[in-house]
Amino acid sequence: MLHSYPANAKSALVVGSVAFDNIKTPTTETGTILGGSACYGSIASSYFAPTQIVGVVGNDFGEEYVERLRKHSIDLTGLQRDESGKTFFWAGVYGENFATRETIDTQLNVFEHFDPTLPSSYQETPYVMLGNIHPSLQHRVLDQMTNHSFIAADTMNLWIDISRDDLMSLLPRLDLFVLNDDEAPMLTGEENPILAGKKILTMGPKSVLIKKGPHGALLFHPDGYFTFPAYPVTNLQDPTGAGDSFLGALMGYLASIDKTDFANLKKAVVYGTVTASITVEAFSCDSLETASRETIEKRFADLLAYVSLS
Amino acid sequence: MLHSYPANAKSALVVGSVAFDNIKTPTTETGTILGGSACYGSIASSYFAPTQIVGVVGNDFGEEYVERLRKHSIDLTGLQRDESGKTFFWAGVYGENFATRETIDTQLNVFEHFDPTLPSSYQETPYVMLGNIHPSLQHRVLDQMTNHSFIAADTMNLWIDISRDDLMSLLPRLDLFVLNDDEAPMLTGEENPILAGKKILTMGPKSVLIKKGPHGALLFHPDGYFTFPAYPVTNLQDPTGAGDSFLGALMGYLASIDKTDFANLKKAVVYGTVTASITVEAFSCDSLETASRETIEKRFADLLAYVSLS
Repeated sequence: MLHSYPANAKSALVVGSVAFDNIKTPTTETGTILGGSACYGSIASSYFAPTQIVGVVGNDFGEEYVERLRKHSIDLTGLQRDESGKTFFWAGVYGENFATRETIDTQLNVFEHFDPTLPSSYQETPYVMLGNIHPSLQHRVLDQMTNHSFIAADTMNLWIDISRDDLMSLLPRLDLFVLNDDEAPMLTGEENPILAGKKILTMGPKSVLIKKGPHGALLFHPDGYFTFPAYPVTNLQDPTGAGDSFLGALMGYLASIDKTDFANLKKAVVYGTVTASITVEAFSCDSLETASRETIEKRFADLLAYVSLS
Repeated sequence: MLHSYPANAKSALVVGSVAFDNIKTPTTETGTILGGSACYGSIASSYFAPTQIVGVVGNDFGEEYVERLRKHSIDLTGLQRDESGKTFFWAGVYGENFATRETIDTQLNVFEHFDPTLPSSYQETPYVMLGNIHPSLQHRVLDQMTNHSFIAADTMNLWIDISRDDLMSLLPRLDLFVLNDDEAPMLTGEENPILAGKKILTMGPKSVLIKKGPHGALLFHPDGYFTFPAYPVTNLQDPTGAGDSFLGALMGYLASIDKTDFANLKKAVVYGTVTASITVEAFSCDSLETASRETIEKRFADLLAYVSLS
């Protein structure tokens, strides 16, 4: 077994896309590679706690890809296989210095009619990560949960743009709402990220995390404000999946200790930060998959030292 | 007396421009206001240690402006008055969300022939801040120093562009070299700020500070790497002078304790961070001038709490 978990660790459920990506950076163009928020999120979570996945793959999703998830002890009961079509495909191009990202091609394929039905064995899973999918699907997952401790959801500019009502009605159902610093102004009309975070708190979620990529993250919580810098990455290859890895690790850590108070949520944010820093050092889930709890703990300790005043 | 200093505090010397600015932001256009790196730097430093200023003003620099410096117990022996012309003038416009800054007008006036001659009483001042002026003038100041403990210099894109040789020969004379995150790639050809900082360390300065504005700062030192987020400003009025206030407070703090090891330099960076956060909440030196050591200490403690995991 690659992973061993504390005896009292709870499980984390990760819902999102399972995808094939084609990614072009200033230096490299990949072929078809494994991607999707559920893949990044579930593998990241698996370093901390037993992890379940809900997603859909198509008839082109070979056993070798399934094996990459199985290897991380991820419960695949909720991974649907739709033989009627291909797996969700996304192609994107990053500009100079990764300052911009442009979508070149999106083929929804089997994801178009994806219904995230939870296996009965998942319905009481206490820690739930709703990866970046349509907010109506995020609602649909929560409607099936009979018991939970902590629900976190990610989103993207597209849903803020075209599905604002669904997203707004989701927010009060969340313990943690996660978004990027360019999405927070879209949602709130407030350019200052501190004011934006505080404003989102009034929209219903119990806490809000604004991610600033290489500039760290801001956590808004009823018990206070927390901010932490990013891990100093010097070998950035591909930022795709950084946010999903961040949230997956954050949720896996909370599940592993089964505590969700402010102090532990802060630690979870730092675990998310350093796990994301591993993901971006290679394409696809490659470096995330070959990490270990020890490499994550090493970066956690290093990052704490980098901000230490002593 | 506004300030009282520890009995063993050393003095800090601040060299730079004394200016009149006219600043336009998305919401406001100022009239002629007090500015310049030496003003921001010396007032910031004055909260921590006895501070001396070297700069030049013209025949339009009224006593009311001198009084604003004198009020902070700043030693004005080195403030030259050139009756032959007007004070250096700069007009700039900030774009939406302060994402851009454009120079509209620069009138060097008496600054054109400024020779930073040090009064003999300054020549052994141990802590020296070389504000953002031409690197040949920064050299000229150091040439007159007979004894010093810690030299820090700021710069700007213009000098990297047109006076690279002077700047490069200055670097080995510095204990701390300070620049912005958009200037570091210009100097090094390296876009990654971590790699850029490490590269600048090889160019001669004993340590390097890269400032990222609202995203905090990165310190590169032979004893290690340090990073700290910015203070969460919600009332940004004008970023002008933030960097000068940062470095002035940093130097004033070091002078006040007369220690320059890595641990104390890290504390000095946090003092710089929070002092800069005060400056940007008003135009000119207005909020910096009306601050107090207590308000600075309050932000210092708050910022430490914001990054605390406990």
